[in-house]
Amino acid sequence: MFGLAIGVPHPSLFPYETMGAEVLPPTAFSVGDPDGILSWFWSVFKAKTSKTRISIPKYANPKDGPNAIQLSTALQYSMVTGLPAFVEFVRNFVLQVFQPAYSDFRVLANSGNTDGWTKACALLCQSGEYILTEDWTYPGALLSAWPSGVRPYPVPMDSLGMIPHGLECILAEWKEDDHEGKRRPHVMYTIPVGQNPTGAVMDAERKQEIYDICVKYDIIIVEDDPYYFLQYPEYKRKSERSLRSHIPGKVNPETSRKFVDTLAPSYLKIDHQGRVIRLDTFSKTIGPGCRLGWTTCNPLFATTMENYSASKTNQTSGISQAMVMQLVAKQWGHDGYVRWLRGIGAQYTERRDLMIDSLFEASSSGLGLAQNHGLSQGTVKVYDAHVKSTGVLYDNLDEKLPSKDKTLFSFAIPNGGMFLWIKFHLKNHHDWVPHPGPGSALEVKLWTDLAEAGVLFAPGYMFSTDEEDAPPDESFGEPHVRSEYAHMRVSFSSATKEEITEAMKTFIQVILKFFR
Amino acid sequence: MFGLAIGVPHPSLFPYETMGAEVLPPTAFSVGDPDGILSWFWSVFKAKTSKTRISIPKYANPKDGPNAIQLSTALQYSMVTGLPAFVEFVRNFVLQVFQPAYSDFRVLANSGNTDGWTKACALLCQSGEYILTEDWTYPGALLSAWPSGVRPYPVPMDSLGMIPHGLECILAEWKEDDHEGKRRPHVMYTIPVGQNPTGAVMDAERKQEIYDICVKYDIIIVEDDPYYFLQYPEYKRKSERSLRSHIPGKVNPETSRKFVDTLAPSYLKIDHQGRVIRLDTFSKTIGPGCRLGWTTCNPLFATTMENYSASKTNQTSGISQAMVMQLVAKQWGHDGYVRWLRGIGAQYTERRDLMIDSLFEASSSGLGLAQNHGLSQGTVKVYDAHVKSTGVLYDNLDEKLPSKDKTLFSFAIPNGGMFLWIKFHLKNHHDWVPHPGPGSALEVKLWTDLAEAGVLFAPGYMFSTDEEDAPPDESFGEPHVRSEYAHMRVSFSSATKEEITEAMKTFIQVILKFFR
Repeated sequence: MFGLAIGVPHPSLFPYETMGAEVLPPTAFSVGDPDGILSWFWSVFKAKTSKTRISIPKYANPKDGPNAIQLSTALQYSMVTGLPAFVEFVRNFVLQVFQPAYSDFRVLANSGNTDGWTKACALLCQSGEYILTEDWTYPGALLSAWPSGVRPYPVPMDSLGMIPHGLECILAEWKEDDHEGKRRPHVMYTIPVGQNPTGAVMDAERKQEIYDICVKYDIIIVEDDPYYFLQYPEYKRKSERSLRSHIPGKVNPETSRKFVDTLAPSYLKIDHQGRVIRLDTFSKTIGPGCRLGWTTCNPLFATTMENYSASKTNQTSGISQAMVMQLVAKQWGHDGYVRWLRGIGAQYTERRDLMIDSLFEASSSGLGLAQNHGLSQGTVKVYDAHVKSTGVLYDNLDEKLPSKDKTLFSFAIPNGGMFLWIKFHLKNHHDWVPHPGPGSALEVKLWTDLAEAGVLFAPGYMFSTDEEDAPPDESFGEPHVRSEYAHMRVSFSSATKEEITEAMKTFIQVILKFFR
Repeated sequence: MFGLAIGVPHPSLFPYETMGAEVLPPTAFSVGDPDGILSWFWSVFKAKTSKTRISIPKYANPKDGPNAIQLSTALQYSMVTGLPAFVEFVRNFVLQVFQPAYSDFRVLANSGNTDGWTKACALLCQSGEYILTEDWTYPGALLSAWPSGVRPYPVPMDSLGMIPHGLECILAEWKEDDHEGKRRPHVMYTIPVGQNPTGAVMDAERKQEIYDICVKYDIIIVEDDPYYFLQYPEYKRKSERSLRSHIPGKVNPETSRKFVDTLAPSYLKIDHQGRVIRLDTFSKTIGPGCRLGWTTCNPLFATTMENYSASKTNQTSGISQAMVMQLVAKQWGHDGYVRWLRGIGAQYTERRDLMIDSLFEASSSGLGLAQNHGLSQGTVKVYDAHVKSTGVLYDNLDEKLPSKDKTLFSFAIPNGGMFLWIKFHLKNHHDWVPHPGPGSALEVKLWTDLAEAGVLFAPGYMFSTDEEDAPPDESFGEPHVRSEYAHMRVSFSSATKEEITEAMKTFIQVILKFFR
């Protein structure tokens, strides 16, 4: 057979003969270490001493089978679903980790979750309609939908994410006449783990409730889950953390399975109807610059998005696929990758712990932090910060405040993701006046004061879904006019230990001055 | 300054410490060698003996300046315009090679020309309108525009590409009432070099004429130019080729400049108004799996497409950018890359020559090939193949045929790209009956006969822009009903030498039988 139909370059003209990399072992970062701060340094030191190599040949040894990775294929045009090695690894990973409720699910490579969501959006959304989102959400997702006139319809949320009752009310009471003739939303965009910006992690029970409502009202769920493997144990005070048990750090199938069982399940696990489109990415676990992820969904949706990909973007970078798969699938393997994910999770746990430790410490001289038992849920603890009425240091942080009026800010300690979400009680500022909508002058002043002191937080209005006709914000359980509050998103993902500690100190100084 | 606004992973958590590759030198493939067939083998042998290495560290040496390539940046989120090294190299390349007519042009990384065209299309096209395209064109481009209801409006073409007079007629005579109320097209999609599927190469003079018409009617030109560096010298018979002068193969700035001057100019060079969006890709010169290319255009268009990219796809793979730039920009440099491009061009020239040699040779026993002087243009030679009326071998291929009625197929020898476009004179088949539109039963039979004999060509209807209301096809200068002809695209890019020779033999056997 002489194939002269397809116009592709001959692989002998590709200038790369082999590609390779020096890589860390899957055990590079310790897991479950009793003292987070120590392991942070230990692991970096350790990693430097145990690098290994991966190498991708131009032509793989035929013995390595049809799914071997080779540059002659990776540098060529290929299926938009992904290289054979990619599809094989990722399908098996989904099966073992997310355990979909039906067997004929499909996986489709994408260039990261922005690309994946754009394609899901093109598949599902009609121009000009509403999609359900968390009350505060990732602005990139809104931007992607915006050009098609697709607008967010916010669902009230608490520190576990969307509130089922809030969702049910919106759907049950929807009248097209109340919404400029727009039909009831039929698509939900949700970030159920380490929600951006609030850090909320939705547990199995809550997911089942939300899913059941989506079945009742025929809603397709797009589960954008970049932070899935950044799920953390409940925060404990620094002095209590040495009690945490030490988990062995080896690559081990049994340990892999146990770890996976500790994670909040994906919607896929309860999706017996095939109404979930799940987006996964290597951005937070390997590196954002890979621009590599995948979409898991039913075969009908997959085929449509595959065709869309073929015409709109073409395949995902073969170099990225080859480099990531040679490492993750071939060098590490499934259990090795799960071990790596545990290590990454432990690193972010330490960062989360360090930020909260620093916040408690910085607050200790001028503020009291008291747990708000009314708003805390499950393992999520919500704290209110108030001006100390006495000069005495508060040792018991759980002490009840005599009055909530003096609260300056509140926050839930995040059990996932990269962010601490701080709610500022602007109404306790002496210049506060009622003002409808987000982005008040006081909010801008607070952000500017912080920035001028050298602390850059992401202003909350960036994540707002607020529109004049939106339902009242019920975050943290109490309806309010938004201008009574301002929010900021504080990232603990990339600053150094020193930066985090110093930033929290400066933050508290600025806050005390701001509310004086 | 403590930056806690952005949620990105810390580079210490990226598992790659260094990336690298074994690569060919820029001189791996010979240029302008008198005997193409010999150099083909020589160069592969040569390449194997002179591989070099590239390496990308996690952190570049600060001495290497802000545009050094490092994994800590390449694996991170970055600007959608491209990594600093990418933008620097590509901007300089555009300046030197395409020589834009204005200085404040911008370059924007894309994930290959499909991605680039999708974004240009989103910028320029309104839903449901017509865009001007070559009469036969790349189906991927049509597919990308199709979901928005954007349809092709074909411009008549000959072997130099779009015919200026044909374009002027369409625009001058456009009446909305004749086209379901649709306005006159204001966007042109064109592949001016090695056009897909016809192989046409548009020269400077023709481009100026087309550009002037576009100025007159305010048309934005999208110049999709993946085959730009696959421009070939005029085909000479095998026996004459030893006369071709030998060009030194070293990396040399002077030779680079001279080579660039031999190429048909880009539309950018005459675009004094900023109405050209040019799409370049590394797909044909490095490898399609890189999914890396760039868009060159005016700053206004660039900003809009940049915003669109940020919301719809995000940046292009940083691994691809790092791997390609470490090779092309850092290892080879501008002149090295130009030398590589000359080598690649010479390789495809040899492939083109081999296919035409083989076609002449295979034809010699049962067919006559005569140059059609009426349709040949400049250095493009058009040949008609006819059944021999005598048993005598035709030595003089330029001999005039006594009658054109017996012509079985025609082709122009391509001076660029990857394709030979063959036009079959179905009306000379004894079963032929008039039939409106493309894709007649005879066309299908011919393709099937070839496939059953083991020769796979791309059927012409795949590249059709034909619609009921389209203007008459004037390809090769004569209006005709499409069903009198069929077309097939034959790729010489990726088959081996033996496959090409054998395929041409089989092709001629099948044709002789088909038309018997």
